[in-house]
Amino acid sequence: MKSKGILMVLSGFSGAGKGTLVKALLRKYDNYALSVSMTTRAPREGERDGVEYFFTDKQHFEETVSRDGLIEYASYCGNYYGTPRAYVEEQMAAGKNVILEIEIQGALKIKEKFPESLLIFVTPPSAEELRRRLEKRGTESPEAIARRLARAVEESEGIESYDYIVVNDDLDTCVEEIHRLVEAARSVPVRNTEFIERIRQELQGFTKGAD
Amino acid sequence: MKSKGILMVLSGFSGAGKGTLVKALLRKYDNYALSVSMTTRAPREGERDGVEYFFTDKQHFEETVSRDGLIEYASYCGNYYGTPRAYVEEQMAAGKNVILEIEIQGALKIKEKFPESLLIFVTPPSAEELRRRLEKRGTESPEAIARRLARAVEESEGIESYDYIVVNDDLDTCVEEIHRLVEAARSVPVRNTEFIERIRQELQGFTKGAD
Repeated sequence: MKSKGILMVLSGFSGAGKGTLVKALLRKYDNYALSVSMTTRAPREGERDGVEYFFTDKQHFEETVSRDGLIEYASYCGNYYGTPRAYVEEQMAAGKNVILEIEIQGALKIKEKFPESLLIFVTPPSAEELRRRLEKRGTESPEAIARRLARAVEESEGIESYDYIVVNDDLDTCVEEIHRLVEAARSVPVRNTEFIERIRQELQGFTKGAD
Repeated sequence: MKSKGILMVLSGFSGAGKGTLVKALLRKYDNYALSVSMTTRAPREGERDGVEYFFTDKQHFEETVSRDGLIEYASYCGNYYGTPRAYVEEQMAAGKNVILEIEIQGALKIKEKFPESLLIFVTPPSAEELRRRLEKRGTESPEAIARRLARAVEESEGIESYDYIVVNDDLDTCVEEIHRLVEAARSVPVRNTEFIERIRQELQGFTKGAD
């Protein structure tokens, strides 16, 4: 009764360590796959097509939308971002848990379309620790850090929409916790409709036989 | 952020092995406690007050209801059944996961009152296996078994109201699965409202400081 992979969304504050968590999940367990988003924004230095994003133009993006080739998409700062359907479906059919690293708007669309999906919000142990991590990167101006923290305030408003909140304090512990949550998700009724239907029909067969 | 115990409901077909599972959970892990129901029905042979049930009379039961001493109660075949509040709250405060072995009506009442509670439905791997287990007991007439199977048809209609469905095929595997589900329940946002509120306020403090 438990073969298809789980569609999981990982969101969380910038600085919560999502990227590191995803890499660790992929390295530690062989049944995860990371979905790569499609975007119309220009690649930044060092970004590779098909790795960080699939880079494309507006026309191709809209064509993809019109043939239902994305499971969700959104417009942000004048650029499109979306999740290509084919890769997600192939990987799930192959039993992989597919990770979408997207923000709350996308997360809520996924939950609406795929009620059996799993939404996980990652947070550092405290806001102070979040600030410390952002400052430690040393790559950003105080203004950029302030913007990220202001953005985190907005993001924090959406936490209750997620199925789970996990604290990324120790990386290994957090990776294991996420893995356990994904495993648990296999036992929700909405992921076991075939099994439930079969046992119902079998039971009904018995009672009809007894009439 | 994770100290209070989980309130968990275990339901499932008669013959699914709930009793054995509960015993195994209590034996294997030291952070579980079994809630004992209060009832106005007469004790059956071998039943001990305070073990299978707290046996009481109608007047005392209704007094307990009127002082809000039960977290849920129902009337069934002319008798009252209810869950005493004090024991549940004490055990949860002490960090124990409290198991209620009750049926769907009670389970739904619990979920309504305690949204952070965890509802688990236990099923054998198939209806055929359920029938086999009921017959193997050798203690019941074919009519009694037929009634239990008819009752199972009704119960099966409620499975989607539960958070999780677990298959009791191998006892040890099933006990571990239930334990993992209970551990996972600690990470739902509704169980972490204090933590979420604190991080929100901290974040807001940062952005106000930056104005």
